[in-house]
Amino acid sequence: MAGSSLGNFFKVTTWGESHGKSVGVIVDGCPAGLSLSEEDIQVYLDRRRPGTGKLVTARQEKDEAQIMSGIFEGKTTGTPICILIWNQDSRSSDYSQIAFCYRPGHADYTFDAKYGFRDYRGGGRQSGRETVGRVAGGAVAMKILKELGIDVAVRVTEIGGRAIGPGERIEEAVQVEEGNSLGGIVECRVNGLPAGLGAPVFDKLDAKLAQAVMSIGAVKGVEFGDGFAAAKSTGQENNDAFFLGEHGIEKETNHAGGVLGGISDGSELILRAAVKPTPSIGLPQRTVNREGKAVTLRIRGRHDAVIVPRAAVVIQSMTALVLTDLLLENMTVKMDSLKVFYGRAGG
Amino acid sequence: MAGSSLGNFFKVTTWGESHGKSVGVIVDGCPAGLSLSEEDIQVYLDRRRPGTGKLVTARQEKDEAQIMSGIFEGKTTGTPICILIWNQDSRSSDYSQIAFCYRPGHADYTFDAKYGFRDYRGGGRQSGRETVGRVAGGAVAMKILKELGIDVAVRVTEIGGRAIGPGERIEEAVQVEEGNSLGGIVECRVNGLPAGLGAPVFDKLDAKLAQAVMSIGAVKGVEFGDGFAAAKSTGQENNDAFFLGEHGIEKETNHAGGVLGGISDGSELILRAAVKPTPSIGLPQRTVNREGKAVTLRIRGRHDAVIVPRAAVVIQSMTALVLTDLLLENMTVKMDSLKVFYGRAGG
Amino acid sequence: MAGSSLGNFFKVTTWGESHGKSVGVIVDGCPAGLSLSEEDIQVYLDRRRPGTGKLVTARQEKDEAQIMSGIFEGKTTGTPICILIWNQDSRSSDYSQIAFCYRPGHADYTFDAKYGFRDYRGGGRQSGRETVGRVAGGAVAMKILKELGIDVAVRVTEIGGRAIGPGERIEEAVQVEEGNSLGGIVECRVNGLPAGLGAPVFDKLDAKLAQAVMSIGAVKGVEFGDGFAAAKSTGQENNDAFFLGEHGIEKETNHAGGVLGGISDGSELILRAAVKPTPSIGLPQRTVNREGKAVTLRIRGRHDAVIVPRAAVVIQSMTALVLTDLLLENMTVKMDSLKVFYGRAGG
Amino acid sequence: MAGSSLGNFFKVTTWGESHGKSVGVIVDGCPAGLSLSEEDIQVYLDRRRPGTGKLVTARQEKDEAQIMSGIFEGKTTGTPICILIWNQDSRSSDYSQIAFCYRPGHADYTFDAKYGFRDYRGGGRQSGRETVGRVAGGAVAMKILKELGIDVAVRVTEIGGRAIGPGERIEEAVQVEEGNSLGGIVECRVNGLPAGLGAPVFDKLDAKLAQAVMSIGAVKGVEFGDGFAAAKSTGQENNDAFFLGEHGIEKETNHAGGVLGGISDGSELILRAAVKPTPSIGLPQRTVNREGKAVTLRIRGRHDAVIVPRAAVVIQSMTALVLTDLLLENMTVKMDSLKVFYGRAGG
Repeated sequence: MAGSSLGNFFKVTTWGESHGKSVGVIVDGCPAGLSLSEEDIQVYLDRRRPGTGKLVTARQEKDEAQIMSGIFEGKTTGTPICILIWNQDSRSSDYSQIAFCYRPGHADYTFDAKYGFRDYRGGGRQSGRETVGRVAGGAVAMKILKELGIDVAVRVTEIGGRAIGPGERIEEAVQVEEGNSLGGIVECRVNGLPAGLGAPVFDKLDAKLAQAVMSIGAVKGVEFGDGFAAAKSTGQENNDAFFLGEHGIEKETNHAGGVLGGISDGSELILRAAVKPTPSIGLPQRTVNREGKAVTLRIRGRHDAVIVPRAAVVIQSMTALVLTDLLLENMTVKMDSLKVFYGRAGG
Repeated sequence: MAGSSLGNFFKVTTWGESHGKSVGVIVDGCPAGLSLSEEDIQVYLDRRRPGTGKLVTARQEKDEAQIMSGIFEGKTTGTPICILIWNQDSRSSDYSQIAFCYRPGHADYTFDAKYGFRDYRGGGRQSGRETVGRVAGGAVAMKILKELGIDVAVRVTEIGGRAIGPGERIEEAVQVEEGNSLGGIVECRVNGLPAGLGAPVFDKLDAKLAQAVMSIGAVKGVEFGDGFAAAKSTGQENNDAFFLGEHGIEKETNHAGGVLGGISDGSELILRAAVKPTPSIGLPQRTVNREGKAVTLRIRGRHDAVIVPRAAVVIQSMTALVLTDLLLENMTVKMDSLKVFYGRAGG
Repeated sequence: MAGSSLGNFFKVTTWGESHGKSVGVIVDGCPAGLSLSEEDIQVYLDRRRPGTGKLVTARQEKDEAQIMSGIFEGKTTGTPICILIWNQDSRSSDYSQIAFCYRPGHADYTFDAKYGFRDYRGGGRQSGRETVGRVAGGAVAMKILKELGIDVAVRVTEIGGRAIGPGERIEEAVQVEEGNSLGGIVECRVNGLPAGLGAPVFDKLDAKLAQAVMSIGAVKGVEFGDGFAAAKSTGQENNDAFFLGEHGIEKETNHAGGVLGGISDGSELILRAAVKPTPSIGLPQRTVNREGKAVTLRIRGRHDAVIVPRAAVVIQSMTALVLTDLLLENMTVKMDSLKVFYGRAGG
Repeated sequence: MAGSSLGNFFKVTTWGESHGKSVGVIVDGCPAGLSLSEEDIQVYLDRRRPGTGKLVTARQEKDEAQIMSGIFEGKTTGTPICILIWNQDSRSSDYSQIAFCYRPGHADYTFDAKYGFRDYRGGGRQSGRETVGRVAGGAVAMKILKELGIDVAVRVTEIGGRAIGPGERIEEAVQVEEGNSLGGIVECRVNGLPAGLGAPVFDKLDAKLAQAVMSIGAVKGVEFGDGFAAAKSTGQENNDAFFLGEHGIEKETNHAGGVLGGISDGSELILRAAVKPTPSIGLPQRTVNREGKAVTLRIRGRHDAVIVPRAAVVIQSMTALVLTDLLLENMTVKMDSLKVFYGRAGG
């Protein structure tokens, strides 16, 4: 199955690998009439880019978004929006070392196992560069959500087991051994979400978000609300009591994280993702080459010692994509809605 | 979007709610020539059924699987397999109490918010009874996996924060306060899985499994391999070194849990799911009715104090469904495979 | 790919073959709040059934629709509607003759070629009986369309090359040689359809209808408006001039058949399908058995000499299914619609 | 529903409109290991381009295919292949005339009805230019089919009601009134197709082809084998007798056009499409503007008097796309195939 698309109504299809000519995304099913400019997308691409700090890779791409289609006089037309970003800083020679051996923690071996060979330059399709298209598509979703008063916020809450407070600068809080890397936790909180998003069975809101967030290469776990902590609690502790608040029916607590039975309940949506430490480390590692011969690998060049902050914007993007898709789905589920839309309300 | 289907090649579509006439599943895309009987399915349905112990509901359904289509002379024909299970023990009167109030931790409120009203008898489509169809479909997948030498095992590893050893009986290990309930952890381990399952981007093996497992009502978190613990480790600790073993290229450790870059690596697949405590508790709870008026709810009748063991077979089923779907996908990804299949190998 | 489902928003999945226990359909994505009873479905199943006339098969099934799920207090709940119809009149012994030879014009040979074997009883999944599920699902769609003021009418316009006038009785107009069969044309006209249904590229209204109607076993051609006659005309003749009528912008003529660029234009939708003569004839035919040995086949028992009137209701059903699916899609394509639905109209 | 994608296994997603920066396609699910160059694609794009003759538009685009991703060392990698073609000759000023009025036979009105406004430059997404992406994607499919020994041939068989013999030059055979246009028939014949492609119900080979071909803007009818003529024949005439030929089981005649019960039978696949005359004519036409005010439109500039030959390559492309998708599907339908693929043949 062609697995480069996500979503049913609001569907993104990404292309591109580390060392092809370009990466990008087609956003199909975007409602017509949304104001959208390249600047709207650039903001998110800039957040995804490696910075200048000591913990991130020195590879520099300007990552300028070019809208190829789907916009007329500054507004979306309802037809596919193609957003292209050229690959610029792709020195293939840097990667000759990894062409014939399997980097631990990377997908080199599994790509070979599946396809018979792989584009080994910079990781090819398994490269983090693949996320550029996700973020570009996510930016379109974020614009829609904003117009509907929905806010998707992400924050790094933990690095290498150390809690990161709000506003705390990661580079100051964290020490990484030379050549090593650290994992962490990203928390995503969505406010302003209407109740009713998600479908009861396989397309539950949390199920769709779990797929979307887990599809980010570095993510190894996803949880909602109390998540794994809920497994240690009792029904009495974990149930959130309902009450009539100023905005209608609300909950006293939010152990559920904003989703009940796979459908948003109108309270804050809370999702956390576990991000593994970057596998590209400068320390020597045992591995094998394609023939199975043991080799010692020491990955040259600079890589992100802490990928977590860059993963945060991707998690935000994936969340926004799923929410937008489900916002569209939810418009079609009541017979009354059809009658109103097609002018048969009194019918 | 119609959300009652899962899978692309091997696709299940479930129907049914707590108090309709029947529940069931259509399995579409099952390869032709698989030996399949109603007994093959019954084994799993029996494991999903409430038992007779002190921790589970007294509701008794025989849950007999009836195959309606897709089988000829004991073998699958490649056409849809419809499996139907009648609802028997559905005393609607038991549920009059919950018709007009929102049970905490349940989807009563969110169903009303989405659809405008709901089938309140026993939870309707949000009932755990909906999982009967999943388990029936999963049984077909389990049969296929078995024929390919793939073993999917599940085990409850924790209840209410207390570790459960292999072979340990939950009823003896766990004490639940009268009227309260406990959550827990289910671990699923798959052996015999070939390398190459899953696709690089949105249809990663772990992403698809995350959706499938998170789509079970009680599940609040999913992780693979070290999962959330990976977020606390370093790259050096978390990377699994490759070596040439007796079965080909293997890994010294398995922090990754059998999946690299979203594709199975041929080692043991390890997945854990956090199951929340059953929200149906006998203790008094604060909530509101449809008009928002505060009420105190005390759920009558017996319910599962610990749903975790019953959730385990559902997690096993969902895992089997995803694996079977991806096994089919993986047959189509190499040009050489096409040439062999269509007799053009030398072409 | 599991090919027993049709539709994205309003999705039907059928099961069943000629001699399994039952046939039926799951309708997933039906809007909540539609009044629906078994009688609503029965009307269409009765029209699909063989009658008592001289041109149709003597096989008699009562074909009683049973709704298994998705209805509460007479209304759809938004969850899957399962409709089951038992197979009753299935005397397997009648079909021993065709078990080992390939009937000309039937799918016996192609099923064997694809799956390695087949359920030969009455044609199995290739039997016209498979259409029971389509008609049951189509009945739900027809109910929705009716509530929106959309009328889908079908009529046999030609049998064996002879035009059939409106109201003309086919049995009186047509003579069929003993043991032979005749094909014909079915025309479907839809009135009350809003402009805007269908999407610009692959999911054009006419493209989706073409798939749906061509997926009926006996259909060999589909055309819209002037159809094949348009190929013989000029642009000046074929273009429909616009004018301002009492219902808004209308067309002076309707060579296009109600669809422009794949999107409905608000005028009458006109579709015609070519139905081939039933291949089950009583005359002797040359064919081979599974081993390739030449045999002469003379199909025993009574079969429809003219299947066209029974195909008409299936064509109507397929049309209704596609229209309903696209009516839902069309609710989600404007940013303004989202703002209105989510209460951000002034946003 | 986002309608710019086609196919399940071999999936194309197109973008672009007449006057955006570029048009193109993402081919997802292409098997790894196929030799593919930009020249392979260019051949088909060149056939789609307007020529220099008297019957075609003078708009000139070089239409150079650029492969953006999915190729490594001259071979497909199994990841998405993005093919981009820049729009060059897009003089927006030429189209000011049609910005505010609805061209008869075009989708101007229906786009406005659906989306609330449209990109009126050159027809936007409804422009024939959208087919560039289809042809680029189709070229990849054609390469796969060729490697499997499958030949897809198209030919214009009729223009304006006049039969066109094989090899006959259309420009010599046909006279078109100044400013007017003509329709025609395109026939597609596929040889070398294995038996077994297509699925029994909604995803029948002919149903999928009907959708794909009808999704081309100018096509108003599709038929297979005898098609509409079959409606005038008898079962005895229309049934194709089987016999044992030198290539196995064959048919004496081919009224069915190579497909039985929606599955290819191994004989020649025959499809015909009715192409309407180009609606862009130079003669004066009655229409209205957006406000409904009557205007007389005379489309300036040169347009194709006969679009049929250019439609032929698009029909070929759409056919190739569907066949490739179904070739992949067909690899997964037998349990024996799974066992062979996963090395459990003796299991």
